[in-house]
Formats: sequence, C-alpha cells, structure tokens
Amino acid sequence: MIEKYSIRTDLALEQKERFEADNVEIPGVVLEENNDEGRNIKVTTVRIETENGAKIMGKPVGTYITLEAPELTVPDEGYHREVSAEILQFLRQLLDIGKEDFSVLVAGLGNRQVTPDALGPYVADNLNITRHIVKEYGKYAMGKDRVCLLSAIVPGVMGQTGMETVEIIRGVVEETRPDALIAIDALAARNSKRLNRTVQITDTGISPGSGVGNQRNAITEETVGVPVIAIGVPTVVDAATIVNDAMENLIAQMEQSEALKGVGVVLQGYNGAEKYELVKELIAPHLNGMFVTPKDVDETVKRISYTISEALNQLCCS
Amino acid sequence: MIEKYSIRTDLALEQKERFEADNVEIPGVVLEENNDEGRNIKVTTVRIETENGAKIMGKPVGTYITLEAPELTVPDEGYHREVSAEILQFLRQLLDIGKEDFSVLVAGLGNRQVTPDALGPYVADNLNITRHIVKEYGKYAMGKDRVCLLSAIVPGVMGQTGMETVEIIRGVVEETRPDALIAIDALAARNSKRLNRTVQITDTGISPGSGVGNQRNAITEETVGVPVIAIGVPTVVDAATIVNDAMENLIAQMEQSEALKGVGVVLQGYNGAEKYELVKELIAPHLNGMFVTPKDVDETVKRISYTISEALNQLCCS
Amino acid sequence: MIEKYSIRTDLALEQKERFEADNVEIPGVVLEENNDEGRNIKVTTVRIETENGAKIMGKPVGTYITLEAPELTVPDEGYHREVSAEILQFLRQLLDIGKEDFSVLVAGLGNRQVTPDALGPYVADNLNITRHIVKEYGKYAMGKDRVCLLSAIVPGVMGQTGMETVEIIRGVVEETRPDALIAIDALAARNSKRLNRTVQITDTGISPGSGVGNQRNAITEETVGVPVIAIGVPTVVDAATIVNDAMENLIAQMEQSEALKGVGVVLQGYNGAEKYELVKELIAPHLNGMFVTPKDVDETVKRISYTISEALNQLCCS
Amino acid sequence: MIEKYSIRTDLALEQKERFEADNVEIPGVVLEENNDEGRNIKVTTVRIETENGAKIMGKPVGTYITLEAPELTVPDEGYHREVSAEILQFLRQLLDIGKEDFSVLVAGLGNRQVTPDALGPYVADNLNITRHIVKEYGKYAMGKDRVCLLSAIVPGVMGQTGMETVEIIRGVVEETRPDALIAIDALAARNSKRLNRTVQITDTGISPGSGVGNQRNAITEETVGVPVIAIGVPTVVDAATIVNDAMENLIAQMEQSEALKGVGVVLQGYNGAEKYELVKELIAPHLNGMFVTPKDVDETVKRISYTISEALNQLCCS
Repeated sequence: MIEKYSIRTDLALEQKERFEADNVEIPGVVLEENNDEGRNIKVTTVRIETENGAKIMGKPVGTYITLEAPELTVPDEGYHREVSAEILQFLRQLLDIGKEDFSVLVAGLGNRQVTPDALGPYVADNLNITRHIVKEYGKYAMGKDRVCLLSAIVPGVMGQTGMETVEIIRGVVEETRPDALIAIDALAARNSKRLNRTVQITDTGISPGSGVGNQRNAITEETVGVPVIAIGVPTVVDAATIVNDAMENLIAQMEQSEALKGVGVVLQGYNGAEKYELVKELIAPHLNGMFVTPKDVDETVKRISYTISEALNQLCCS
Repeated sequence: MIEKYSIRTDLALEQKERFEADNVEIPGVVLEENNDEGRNIKVTTVRIETENGAKIMGKPVGTYITLEAPELTVPDEGYHREVSAEILQFLRQLLDIGKEDFSVLVAGLGNRQVTPDALGPYVADNLNITRHIVKEYGKYAMGKDRVCLLSAIVPGVMGQTGMETVEIIRGVVEETRPDALIAIDALAARNSKRLNRTVQITDTGISPGSGVGNQRNAITEETVGVPVIAIGVPTVVDAATIVNDAMENLIAQMEQSEALKGVGVVLQGYNGAEKYELVKELIAPHLNGMFVTPKDVDETVKRISYTISEALNQLCCS
Repeated sequence: MIEKYSIRTDLALEQKERFEADNVEIPGVVLEENNDEGRNIKVTTVRIETENGAKIMGKPVGTYITLEAPELTVPDEGYHREVSAEILQFLRQLLDIGKEDFSVLVAGLGNRQVTPDALGPYVADNLNITRHIVKEYGKYAMGKDRVCLLSAIVPGVMGQTGMETVEIIRGVVEETRPDALIAIDALAARNSKRLNRTVQITDTGISPGSGVGNQRNAITEETVGVPVIAIGVPTVVDAATIVNDAMENLIAQMEQSEALKGVGVVLQGYNGAEKYELVKELIAPHLNGMFVTPKDVDETVKRISYTISEALNQLCCS
Repeated sequence: MIEKYSIRTDLALEQKERFEADNVEIPGVVLEENNDEGRNIKVTTVRIETENGAKIMGKPVGTYITLEAPELTVPDEGYHREVSAEILQFLRQLLDIGKEDFSVLVAGLGNRQVTPDALGPYVADNLNITRHIVKEYGKYAMGKDRVCLLSAIVPGVMGQTGMETVEIIRGVVEETRPDALIAIDALAARNSKRLNRTVQITDTGISPGSGVGNQRNAITEETVGVPVIAIGVPTVVDAATIVNDAMENLIAQMEQSEALKGVGVVLQGYNGAEKYELVKELIAPHLNGMFVTPKDVDETVKRISYTISEALNQLCCS
C-alpha cells in the first residue's frame, strides 16, 4: 500500500478528501456528512475503524467529527452560541458522563505568545473553573444537583518548559485523577478556506506527526491514563502547502491545455509522487518554519476561544 | 509561649524585627548581617534552628537569606548584574550541585494577569530552558562540559486551574525527576519601603499561612519529594498592615505625649495584643482583599524578573 | 472660606459627603439622589452651579452624575446591561445629539500597562469604531438612517509620550473635528467600598488636581474646543487616604471613650485641619506613590470596561 | 515605459532587484552597495533622484538605506549593538540635527494586537522619553549639555481609531512642533529570506500603495509639515507573493527543460506580464488577506524593536 505523500494537515476530513480526489476507496474508513444548510453548519464524521485504515490515513483509529462553520470568523453571537451547542452535543457523545460527579481536566495546549498558537491558552482563560470550589464546599455550593469538577492547565510549549507536554499532563492527571482530559489545540490545515472556520473533535487524543505506531509524545489514553478528547481549530497553513497547491493547479491546467499539449503528454506520464517531487524542488527551503495566517487572526482566535469555552462551561449543567 | 499577633509578612527578616522591637530574644533563631555599603546591598541571614524557634517565628526551620538592594527599582544594569551574582552565589550555597548533570525545575508561581503577582511567570518567561536540548542532543550540544538541565512550569493559581499548585508541581516533579525545585513567588511585606527592593532566598520552600505544622498545600521537600529553594520578592503590603502600622505609631506617640498624658497612662496598661485588638476594630472590614502597591509596579516587577532569571540562567555555567 | 484640607478624591459625590460630615451647607451646590432599590443602582447628581461652589468643592462648575452599582464587580450580564443603559441615558442627557451625523471622539486615558489605570484603553479596545466606514461608504453602509461617527484614541501617559495628554487630544480634535469628546479615565476614590462599583459621568471634562482656576493641562471645552464628557470609575484609593480614615476613626472613638476621657478633652479642642496635621505626621512619607486596590482588579476593570463600551456603542443607534 | 506588474514589496532594494533580474537600467535611480563581511552587515543605498525614476520604481524620490543583517533573528547582544550603531549613523546622516535642542517625535505605527504588525508600538514602548522632563526642568536635568526632546505616539490603526493615521500624527505635530518625525513600521517583503533581518531607513516618509502622485494618506513632509524619516523592518510576505515566486521558478525551469521542450517554446513567447497573468489565475483568491510569517515572529520582533529603540535613545547623546 503506497502511503500518500506527506502534505501536512491535522484534519482527518482533509486527509480523506485527498484520497477522494484520486478516487481511492480506503477500507476501514467510513465518512458521514450532515449539512444543515438552514443553520449554515456542516458536520462531517470520519470514522477510522481498522489499523489498516489508520495506516493509510496517517491518523489513529477513532472518531473525527468536523464542524465547518463559515460564519465563525464573524462576530455573530447567535451563530457562535449554536456552534457552542453543537460542540457540547458532540462532547457528550464522545464522553461517557455517567457518574454523578464527573471531573474533567482541560489542557490548553500551545504558545500563548504566538497568536495563531494561542487558542488553547485562551480557551483555558475563559473557563468557569469549579473543581476547587466543589472540593472545598461540596457540590451544593454550586447550587446544582450534579456538577462537573472542571480544572484546567496551560502547560506551555517545549521551548518554554524544557519538558514534553505529555510529561506535564501525565503528572497532573496522576495527581488529580480526572475522569477525562479534554485537550484544546490550534491545528494546521491544508486549505486556507478552512482557517478559523472549522472545529475538529476527536476521541483519539493528540498524536504529533504521522500519528500511527508507538508514540511517546502523543497525548492519548495510552500515554495519559484517562480518555482524551481533542478539540482543534485550524489557524495556520504551512507556507509550503499553499505553494504546492498552486503548483498542482498549474500542472493540472497544463495537462489539459491545447497550447501546451507537449507538456501534457510528458506530465501525464508522472504519477502523483513524482509530480510532488518536481514541485518540492521548486519550493524555496527557507519556507520551512513559515506559516500562512489571516491578517485578523488575533480577533478571530479570541472569538472562537469563547465559543469553545462556552461548550466546556456547560458540559455538565443539565 | 505567646504567639505574636498575626500581621502578615512573608519575610523572615521582618518577623525577626518584630520581636527585636519588643526586645525579645528568640531561642533557636540566629541572625547574621552583612552590609556591603560600597555596593549598596545588605544581606541578612536568619537561621531558624529549632522547632521551638519555628513555632515562635511562624516559619519552618531553615535558612532565610534576605538581600536588601535599594537600587533594584532603578534601571541600573550594572547594579542588577551584581544582585544577580549575589542571588546566584546564595543558590549555589543552598543547593548541592555536586553531580555532573544537575537538573532544576523552576516553578513560576502566581497570577500572570495581576501585575504584582506576576513575578514568577515573568521569571519563567526569561529563562534559557535547556532540558529538552540536552535530552535530545546530549550536553555537548550546549558547548559545555557540564550543564544544568533547566526546565520550567507556570502552574497558574487555583482560581484558574481548580487545582492546588502543589498538586501540579508534584505531578510534574514525579514525571520529570529534577534534582531540585526552585519556586519563584511574589511576597507580601510589612514595610512598604521593602517593596520591589528585597529578595528572600530560602531552603524551606513555600508554606502558606503560619507556615508551621503539617501543611498539605505547602511546596516543600516533604510534599514534593525533592529539595525546594524559594526565591521571593515582596511586591505588595496588605492594606490592613499599613493602617495598623500608622495607628501603632499614633498610639506610641500618644503614650509619650505630655498633652495626652491621660491616654498614655491608659494605653501603657495594654499589652501588644490588646492594642492590636483596639486597632483591628478600627480597620474597615472592606480592606480585606485590598493590597498596597507602588504606581510603577509593572515596570519594576519586569526589571527584577530579569535579574532573577539571569541568576538562574547562570546557575550551572561554571 | 477655608478650603477643606486635601484628601484626594476624584468623585464629586465624596467631596460633597465630606462637607456633610461636618454639617456644612455649601452655597451653589445642589445634590439630588435617586435610589432604585429594585435594580440596586443608586444615582446621585451633584450640580455645582456657582464659581464659589466650585472653589469650595475644588471641582469646576457642572453636573456630576454618580451611579453606585454594587454588583458591578460580579459577572452578572443582565445587571451590567442595565448599568450600560443608565450610562447611555445620562450621556444622551449631557450631550446634545441633535444633528443627523453626530461625531464623537472617545479618548481612552491612562496607562495600558498598569491594570488599575488601564480602564480607558480597555474601553477604547471594545468600541465598534464607525467613523472611517461612514467616511468611506456613507451612513447607509451601516444599515441605519442615522449614525454616530465613532472614533477613538488611546493617547498614553506622559511618561510614555513626553507630551501632555491634552496636547495630543487637542491636535486630534483639530484635525478630525468631532462634535464632542468623551474621555474615559480611572479615578481615585476616598472610600475603598466604592472601588470598581461606581461610575461618575460629568460634563466638566477632566481637571487634574484641585480642578479650579486656569488649568493648561485640563481636558475641557476651553482647552480642547468641543464639549467634553468625562466617564470615570474609581479603581484605586491613595494609600495615605486609607491610613487617614482609620486614624480619624481612632481619634473619634477616643473622643467618646470613657477610659480615654482625658484624650477626648484635648482632641475635642482640635479642629479638622489640626487633627489632619496630627495624623499626617504619622503617615510614613514612603506611602507617597502607593495605592490601594483589590486583588481582583484586573478582571473587574475588564468587566466594567465592557459595560462602558456597550453604552458608547449604542450612543446613536436609536 | 511599462510599469512593472505589481507584486507587493515595501523595500526599495527589492523593487530595484526586480528590474535587475530583467537587466533593465532605470534612469534616475542610483544604487550603492557596501558589504562589511567582517561584521556581517550589508548596506545598500538606493537613491531615486528623478520623478521618472520614482514613477518606474513606484516609490517617491529620496534615499533608501537598507541594512541586511542576517544575525538579527539571533539573540547576540554584541551584534544587535552594532546594528543599533549603524541605524544611529544613518539617522544622523538623514536628519539635520544642527540646533542645540533638537526635538523628535517617534510614531510607532501598526497594530499592537497583531504580532507581525506590532514593531512600531514595541519600539515606542522601549524609548527613553525626555521631552516632558526637559520642558519641566530644562536640559540640565538630563545631566547633559545638549539633549534631544524625544516624544512618542502610538496612534493605532484605522480599524481601532476610525481615523487615518496621518490625521492623528498631523494633529500631534501641529500641537507639539517637533523638528522631525521618525515613523516606525512593519513592512512587507517579497523575499521571505529578508524577514526580520532587514532594516530600511528612508527620508521619504511612508506612502501607502504605489507611493507616487498626490497621496492624502501618506505620512510625509508635505502632509505632516516636518521632515519624516521612516524606519521599517519586513515582518511578513504576502501569501500570494510566495506562490507567485515558486511558480515563476517552475515556469523558468520548464523553459530550460529538455523533457519539456515543447512548453519552453510556448512559454518563451510570453512576456513577463503575460506569465504573471497565467500565474495569477491559479492563485486562489482566498489568499487575499493572508500573510506568511515565521513561527518565532513574536520573539524576533521584540528583539529587533530593542535594537531600533536603542538607536533612537542615543540619537542626540553625543
């Protein structure tokens, strides 16, 4: 089985789309779409059901729910409230909140100092933390019959801490024994149209890189000891990805051009991987470490962080 | 033994001064002064050597080194460098950095959002973190024969995390096994003249409240599992303290006043605790939760945070 | 007429109270109270109508509306909305928004880096600025028949700019010709119970210090050229004020004490100014430049800034 | 004369390079290079001497000095000090600081909330402002025979203020009458290798867009009334630029490819503008408003802001 050449995306939805573009069926991967046009929110669920499917997709077995909400970048309170409600519903679906005093630790991943990476810390800032109050005064202090014990940690990034994020989280989980971990993180997308408009919720946790095999840095039930839900929003596209996309367009157009018939014949002889190699040579190496992000990323990330926090704040108030 | 009535100070030096004011010798507590007038840095070491001394002082057994450096509030680089060198020297004295690859975890305590409480997070921001580099590439990557593995955590405060700070730190220590913890925290002083001009370094860790007895929230070798050095700078005075001080002055003056001879006679009959009660009634209860801080606290705290970070950055570069 | 000794307050209401405490009627100053207990908002209007009244009060002739809203420190959205509505109503009362395209420049005064002084900058951050849109696309771009042209400036403080705030504002007003200026500023109160719970709205602008006579640094219709409304919230109390208050209590109590009868006799012979002198000597000079503020000032100031911004955003949407 | 198609760059140096790539001599434009390899700083001066040259270059007549300093992104204090010294020297060359009490207003342009645009505000934050001290106490208060009166303004961006930046600056200049204005701004470059490593100093002020003709929004001696020096550092590249560059490479390579000989023949028949049109169609329109920036932009911009502030702080200390 040929692995798809590695243009980076953190969205299972986009990974699936790449195969669809080539009309490839992936065994063990199921896709389900639900487009609520009235509310302008599209929900896609990708279920990776087998290890083989995981290998092809480059992502672990599990459920990936993607909300595409084009108005998320706009300050429309009503719309944001609806997206919060959707996120809340999917969290409840993925988490088994059976017991009376369910406790959740939220990990706000990323770097607070770099705007497109600050989503996680911002979400943590907006939470109504309750664990210490319930511990001190009992759940009736909250004026409710059942409560979540909500706690949160902003671990920072390795350059700031010298530690793997999973080391910090595992330590905190072992000390405070939450029933589940919810990790919030900014993601990279392939398609700049998805930036700050898409929320991915998954029960697989967070797996850096290819995401399969034994990963000591992953933040998953295996490494942390409790179920891990990850909520992510793509806020950047790798600079190399954008260049690659444009050039794939150029090549595709040349293949069909009458004027450039000669090129077409040559290029049609190349397979995808060979075209990618051709393109890669042309991408300046100094694009490494560069990312593409919209000019209003600060405002937008702040706004979405409220929307996600709101879902978390309501998680067990029912 | 009568416990001294509890005006709050986090400085062992100030606690000692209170007894001196009453001409009380405290058994088991030794004081040593070293005033380097040339450099304008005064060093006082308070050694609490017995449990009895600890009980009277309201602070655990251990060594408390206080640097009084009046120019710390001024942007004089040379002076700040000297204070860094002093801090570094005392850290080396309190820590046993014998082995080759000594590892230190710095905990930047306090609330990043509240300026006078942000000292710890600011210090962590300025550190040259090395643990992850040494782990990945070996110590020769640092271009040195021996290196510290420096790591850092900014745990946040309970209102933000829902967790005791010690829970977070203990978890991280258990996972990453540093040889020592250095906790940085903003302190409360009694005397506003000491604000942002004083650094206390102690090998006792951090003990909230009275600081003696079994304290589950303390950050000490007992609760955390490795030696704990605490570095603190007083950045606030409790509002009630300032009022109390002024009123003690007023009463003292009345006791000696010819015009107010009658009062003097009455007041001289009161002991310290009774006078404190008299005064306490007059302090408005809404002063609770209020603190006194200088107008330029933001700038000053940032500047001192660099001075402390510098000492930590140089800790094992020798 | 003897000027009242100068304990600092920026609230006309508190200045008035000081005279009431001494049972002094001030000619030319009218007070009107309106306590809406149902909504828990108390409105007091102080009208200084004569130059003589201004001299006694140490504040210029004009109208000072004070909202005391005890729940302002609490995150109760409904209550904050009511306070916004009140502020909006008083702004309309003080401003003459007759013409169709009324333009308002908001000046967010104070220092963004020092939390208790950051109210003005925070308010400016939250505004829905419209002037540039209306200038470019006409008022119909806003989807409304009549619109405010809202613009805003955050001038910074003299230590950051090297300029008097009034110089910057006068320059901007001359260039952009708004119909009115609304200046937002953090204030000092006498009474710590008022901190972050009180909003003063006045048509006199901002006059540093005693506030009467020819003041080149004042921000008023005289110095700026257009009507100036000032909105202020007390966020700090001078440290010396709190000490003074407590000591006045102590002296008052001594005057009435049976045990301290002797003192009473002596102290009753003193007038207010003499007692103030007695007290002043006891206040440590290093309290200068110190202020008292609540521990949660950051959160509270942010919350109130939204409440004020909301009133400004709705100013001409009717 | 054909205008070069408009890929955006704010660097005169890069504009010049584009013509050189086509072997085009531009009359009225003189270039002078000075590569100090020992210090690893390359200085290029572009002098646009005629209106015709200005039209071709799309930038106003004047002198553009560019420092290329590859180590600027690295925390090497000595190197940053050398770059400061270079900037200082060029400022003195462009400014006529003849008189004894020269006064300079620094305008820190850009948006403090968006990291790559925050260079100007950061530079203003680091200045040693002196104007108010000299005004109050005379120049001897500074302990020097001659002093600059340094003042600074951070005007914000139009979305925050509702005003053109030039309106605010003109107002402040008219009120405070500095001898010169120095405007600091983040720039866009064509070449991502130049990001955060290049400083452009020019005596032409700042002209948005094509930069020639009558521009009411420009910040120049004509619009502001005093000489204007602009200091800029490129911190972003437009996303479309990066894609365009990569595709120009692709086409260039195809022209020379043996395998793709047929394409070469066709493409060689196109001129630059036609190729640009071909490429433009392939660039996704949603790249508008997107920019490319390095992951560590926050740190890097902070560091360079100190380097520039240092030059400004020393401007008249000689």
